[in-house]
Amino acid sequence: MNTTVDQLETPQVLIDRERLLANIDRVQKIADRNRVRLRPHIKTHKCIQLAELQLARGAVGITVSKPEEALVFIEHADLASVTVAYPLIAPQKIERLIAAAAERGLEVRVVVDSELALNTAAAAARAFGGKLPVFLEIDVGLHRCGLEESDPRLLQLAQQIVAAPNLQFAGILSHAGHAYGARDRAEVARVAAAECATLNRVAATLRANRFDVLEVSVGSTPTVLASETFDGVTEIRPGNYVFLDATAVRLGIAQLEDVALSVLATIVSANSRFWIIDAGSKILSSDLGAHGSSGNSGYGIALPLHNSSATPLKVSRLSEEHGWIARTNAPLRIGDRIRLVPNHSCPVANLVDQLTVVSGNDVIDQWPVAARGKVR
Amino acid sequence: MNTTVDQLETPQVLIDRERLLANIDRVQKIADRNRVRLRPHIKTHKCIQLAELQLARGAVGITVSKPEEALVFIEHADLASVTVAYPLIAPQKIERLIAAAAERGLEVRVVVDSELALNTAAAAARAFGGKLPVFLEIDVGLHRCGLEESDPRLLQLAQQIVAAPNLQFAGILSHAGHAYGARDRAEVARVAAAECATLNRVAATLRANRFDVLEVSVGSTPTVLASETFDGVTEIRPGNYVFLDATAVRLGIAQLEDVALSVLATIVSANSRFWIIDAGSKILSSDLGAHGSSGNSGYGIALPLHNSSATPLKVSRLSEEHGWIARTNAPLRIGDRIRLVPNHSCPVANLVDQLTVVSGNDVIDQWPVAARGKVR
Repeated sequence: MNTTVDQLETPQVLIDRERLLANIDRVQKIADRNRVRLRPHIKTHKCIQLAELQLARGAVGITVSKPEEALVFIEHADLASVTVAYPLIAPQKIERLIAAAAERGLEVRVVVDSELALNTAAAAARAFGGKLPVFLEIDVGLHRCGLEESDPRLLQLAQQIVAAPNLQFAGILSHAGHAYGARDRAEVARVAAAECATLNRVAATLRANRFDVLEVSVGSTPTVLASETFDGVTEIRPGNYVFLDATAVRLGIAQLEDVALSVLATIVSANSRFWIIDAGSKILSSDLGAHGSSGNSGYGIALPLHNSSATPLKVSRLSEEHGWIARTNAPLRIGDRIRLVPNHSCPVANLVDQLTVVSGNDVIDQWPVAARGKVR
Repeated sequence: MNTTVDQLETPQVLIDRERLLANIDRVQKIADRNRVRLRPHIKTHKCIQLAELQLARGAVGITVSKPEEALVFIEHADLASVTVAYPLIAPQKIERLIAAAAERGLEVRVVVDSELALNTAAAAARAFGGKLPVFLEIDVGLHRCGLEESDPRLLQLAQQIVAAPNLQFAGILSHAGHAYGARDRAEVARVAAAECATLNRVAATLRANRFDVLEVSVGSTPTVLASETFDGVTEIRPGNYVFLDATAVRLGIAQLEDVALSVLATIVSANSRFWIIDAGSKILSSDLGAHGSSGNSGYGIALPLHNSSATPLKVSRLSEEHGWIARTNAPLRIGDRIRLVPNHSCPVANLVDQLTVVSGNDVIDQWPVAARGKVR
């Protein structure tokens, strides 16, 4: 594109192509080595070009959290299968999804954790015909969606799926998002081991009751990167791993040099205590971590653009379009450029319409964040 | 549009038209009664239709924080004047702005608080010709941008503006954003009084040095709504007042019934402690308040859709697409709809591509958030 990072206007979300590819390869290798399928969650990037890199390197399909995201990928990506890992209880959302997937010859899979979600899926599948694969979501400790291991509804819902003429029982699925609240890599590994053990117990119970558990699907970036066992697991669904962020660094599952997403900013003002940059909560988000985890202090790590070995600075505070970096002895002045590593990459990509892909100091591409902001 | 709120898909950002108009009128009346001009900050809504309502009711122009926002309004709104209340130090940003404004016959005004910003403005104005109005930004306590009252550079920069052949000294401008951190309305009023006093002292000093201070421009929603004096002030620039939010309610400058922006959500799951809704940080933002203020507990106030007199519930935690509402005795179940009042409306409007305008239960319009996500 004949442009360099120095010439870009700020603020801007940069993706380092080499780091991105290394991150994609790292997790694909984990999947291959452990003989599990990789079905990345695209909520992190919402970007067709990026999903196609994941698919080209071995991902078997994608995971999404919204049917509106799924529709964008069904329409524009070269793709065989989509899992909507979110309870759908609006009939029109699931009907639209099934119709779009059928039109393109794609597989779509859904999750349920309540009778209402199950009945909604059954009705939509019946209206359309065919067999809709349905997962039971299991709560492995985040205490958000999903049924607990001991919940008697688990066998009841499995029975109802099997009994529904147009549903097919796909297996069980979980998200150990509480791993983001861990203190270190060892604690993340313990969360992963506990998730694996829980799902194996649930699968054993289901199998003892003659349910065919085809898929045992787990997924969060921390647990996938820190886990020592994938026993019994058939599929992983991490999302954040493509970019990583300051939270991944804090958890010890990545180095600062692995983080592929950064925000390019400029020092636009200064007072006696702070440098003020043109990146605020409308590009960094106010996230302290994922799922409300708050282990990071401040709103991101700041590095001078051409001196990444300089002591990292901290973004102490955010307004909507301003960030506050506590002044140090660093020889920075108004007009200088800063590269920021956010606490949480996923909401950052969601705040811009395009990602600027760079290789070293060269700008090599711009990718639309095609599936952001979709509301019907 | 022949649709009701009950038929809308969720999550969705709703704007209550009657409350919106009442909020616009309330502040326009404050301006008229105190004989100050109202130049609303459009960063709150980034919406042409909404700005035109403000202009039709008496606003003299708009304030923006990004030149990229300004360009959208210059091109699409029926508008006489724009202030970019943000230090611009990238030459191309200010050149583009001046050119676009000239082409449409609009006035554009900028602020400076450093020699670099001043030199950038002077060079751009010189290249273009004409006279560019320039404000000096004064720090009245937020300690973000702006010069402190005692800063010797204040008179130096004023002198340099007057000496630059294509700049015109417009006056002084401040933003008392620290008012968002106040405990109550009385404290907000004290912040407003202190801001007013500071600016009057700065104006007196400048006038004593023979600078013509045409404009004394203040603006934040809390200070405008709580202030008892506008002595010496010529212009107010509030933004958030059109929508308000849980922070305005906490500060005692508005009632819950005044808040015009809400997020419509659905309960999609439930566990023993929480109802789980389909609105997370990707529509509510993770903001606890404005400028990092954190006086609100939780991420928003939740009300059942058709029972706004029910005891308000609290959004305790957010994932990206999920909100966690602590369960009470309220007779809520999966599938029920919730209306959420966020902590901070401004980042919410910035997270969607359109605002759904409602009157009671009727959906009457959809307005694009035209100036969001603009990056060059």
